[in-house]
Amino acid sequence: MKIDGRDTRTIWLESDGQSVGIIDQTQLPHRFVTARLANLEDAARAIKTMQVRGAPLIGATAAYGVWLALRADTSDEALERACATLLATRPTAINLKWALDEMLAAVRNRPRGERASAALRRAGEIAEEDVAINRAIGRHGLKIIEDIAARKKGERVNVLTHCNAGWLATVDWGTATAPIYLAHDKGLPVHVFADETRPRNQGASLTAWELGKHGVPHTVIPDNTGGHLMQHGQVDLVIVGTDRVTAQGDVCNKIGTYLKALAAYDNNVPFYVALPSPTIDFTVSDGLAQIPIEQRAAEEVATMTGKTRDGRIETVQIIPDGSAVANYAFDVTPARLVTGLITERGVLKAERAALAAAFPERAGKSLQSRAKVGS
Amino acid sequence: MKIDGRDTRTIWLESDGQSVGIIDQTQLPHRFVTARLANLEDAARAIKTMQVRGAPLIGATAAYGVWLALRADTSDEALERACATLLATRPTAINLKWALDEMLAAVRNRPRGERASAALRRAGEIAEEDVAINRAIGRHGLKIIEDIAARKKGERVNVLTHCNAGWLATVDWGTATAPIYLAHDKGLPVHVFADETRPRNQGASLTAWELGKHGVPHTVIPDNTGGHLMQHGQVDLVIVGTDRVTAQGDVCNKIGTYLKALAAYDNNVPFYVALPSPTIDFTVSDGLAQIPIEQRAAEEVATMTGKTRDGRIETVQIIPDGSAVANYAFDVTPARLVTGLITERGVLKAERAALAAAFPERAGKSLQSRAKVGS
Repeated sequence: MKIDGRDTRTIWLESDGQSVGIIDQTQLPHRFVTARLANLEDAARAIKTMQVRGAPLIGATAAYGVWLALRADTSDEALERACATLLATRPTAINLKWALDEMLAAVRNRPRGERASAALRRAGEIAEEDVAINRAIGRHGLKIIEDIAARKKGERVNVLTHCNAGWLATVDWGTATAPIYLAHDKGLPVHVFADETRPRNQGASLTAWELGKHGVPHTVIPDNTGGHLMQHGQVDLVIVGTDRVTAQGDVCNKIGTYLKALAAYDNNVPFYVALPSPTIDFTVSDGLAQIPIEQRAAEEVATMTGKTRDGRIETVQIIPDGSAVANYAFDVTPARLVTGLITERGVLKAERAALAAAFPERAGKSLQSRAKVGS
Repeated sequence: MKIDGRDTRTIWLESDGQSVGIIDQTQLPHRFVTARLANLEDAARAIKTMQVRGAPLIGATAAYGVWLALRADTSDEALERACATLLATRPTAINLKWALDEMLAAVRNRPRGERASAALRRAGEIAEEDVAINRAIGRHGLKIIEDIAARKKGERVNVLTHCNAGWLATVDWGTATAPIYLAHDKGLPVHVFADETRPRNQGASLTAWELGKHGVPHTVIPDNTGGHLMQHGQVDLVIVGTDRVTAQGDVCNKIGTYLKALAAYDNNVPFYVALPSPTIDFTVSDGLAQIPIEQRAAEEVATMTGKTRDGRIETVQIIPDGSAVANYAFDVTPARLVTGLITERGVLKAERAALAAAFPERAGKSLQSRAKVGS
């Protein structure tokens, strides 16, 4: 999307043709800094230190990381070492494993002289595929916004979102934000309420930043505020991203998503989840019972980082010494609260049959693999 | 309640008999500092700068402020000036007006030589009345906790609360916390999940601090977390305070309360509201339609204040430059989501008939005044 009018992606091939550029997202929203990845170690560090984050962007970065490794050494050993190093950076990221498998398949059986160029080509494709999926999600979601805009006859359409499922988490467009950017670029009067998203504040820092840079009108709100806004007709629809959707349509996403889904349901506000289909996990049904929820470091709740009046970045403690803290990273929104799932193949009901019909090749495979495990 | 084992209130007559002591709550939770109010100006400043906050404590401080003014000058003019000065400190605080009216009534028709001592006596009574009301709320709420404790047979009872309706907001005991302190002091294994309560963080700073100082086990959680905990059976009941309850039982309280009430309802977790009866506004019925919600300064959302690693208190900006912010202070929880109202006269259903039956002297009066206005 645009940064101060200039088209930008979260990852790109540098003009020297020998390195990869990224936005150092740890510096956002207070500083816009780019970084150059020149070798495997740079790529691994960028993922590990969360200079890049978001499943699709992590996948793309890892793919380029394999290329960077092969530029220095095209041996089988170097290839294996590169994949192992990159896989170890964020052990639970599904896209990371997928991207590395794709890179291995593209490179392994080639002569050493062709490996680097094949890796660069496949990494580029992986990035483009992500952009294409997100644009498709955007087109399907756009129709929802257009319908509301038509009904509201020029009044602004208010979208509430939680956390950052924006272009910063992908190569471009984002998932939850793709319909919003398309609507804005088409001239629809769209406005976004961005939940702060404690404790890591991805909404207040990343979502607000990227919407602002692209020129989309937006308002940062505390996570407590969405219910009140919905009670008073100030939210036309909710669109969030997701980390995992189950076969029956339960949605695992950033902690607090469930509370917004309840408020949307209580106030007849449509609640949509935008996702690329690899996010659907057909091996899991009941999200509440089956998805283990990661607990993260206490410091994320106990402290807050921001910019001081004189421009320094400082971290402050915001709880009393000695108080305990709980920090669950995600929650599960039951399918019954979800109006629709916006995928690259269209907007689906959050129901087993709808998901299986839209993605028969994946639903079938997982049924077979389950049957095998069971027998 | 106790601070490191020593019984403490939020306001007290100093041992010199000539001044009033308070806890400077603007310094919490990182520093425990007391302040001495020696004259009217000190008392007015303490309220205005929120060294004292919470409706009951503001009322008590204003009452003592009238006494401090009369110590210097017992004239009618001084009395009037004291009341006007104190009333202007927090124009919307209902208890402030009530306490000043009480003080006027106690002092006005007395000879000047008796005014100061009469004022000191009435101020002391106002403080004691608050303590008595909160202790009565505590006793009624304690039964609810005892019933759950009996059912759980020694397992810990988990109470979730939002914002600070603790002893720091009153003279002692608090409202939502009174049942918790009584249960803890009785040896029941009670544990509190304290919502952080963005944007002003009263839960993470004040509630966690006072629970910790009294020795009540507690855990600070982001406002996003309560729904997940309730889905997984980790919350036995919710108790919150309130700023205003309507004649039909709608509850106006700190922003985000409504979201917790929805989650409690969705998971069959009892949701209680603790309140002294003056909080009931019999002139208002439909909280959503009739209660205007205050919007507060953007800085509260845009910044966060805390303690740096080297012990300084610092404020940091946590949103991008140029992003807009919305800061609604309260929301309304419809009566249908409230399990019960814990008042000094018992636990009531959140229904018009129950409220009117428990407080006939107030419900009747307001019906009369409404009839008059209507005719």
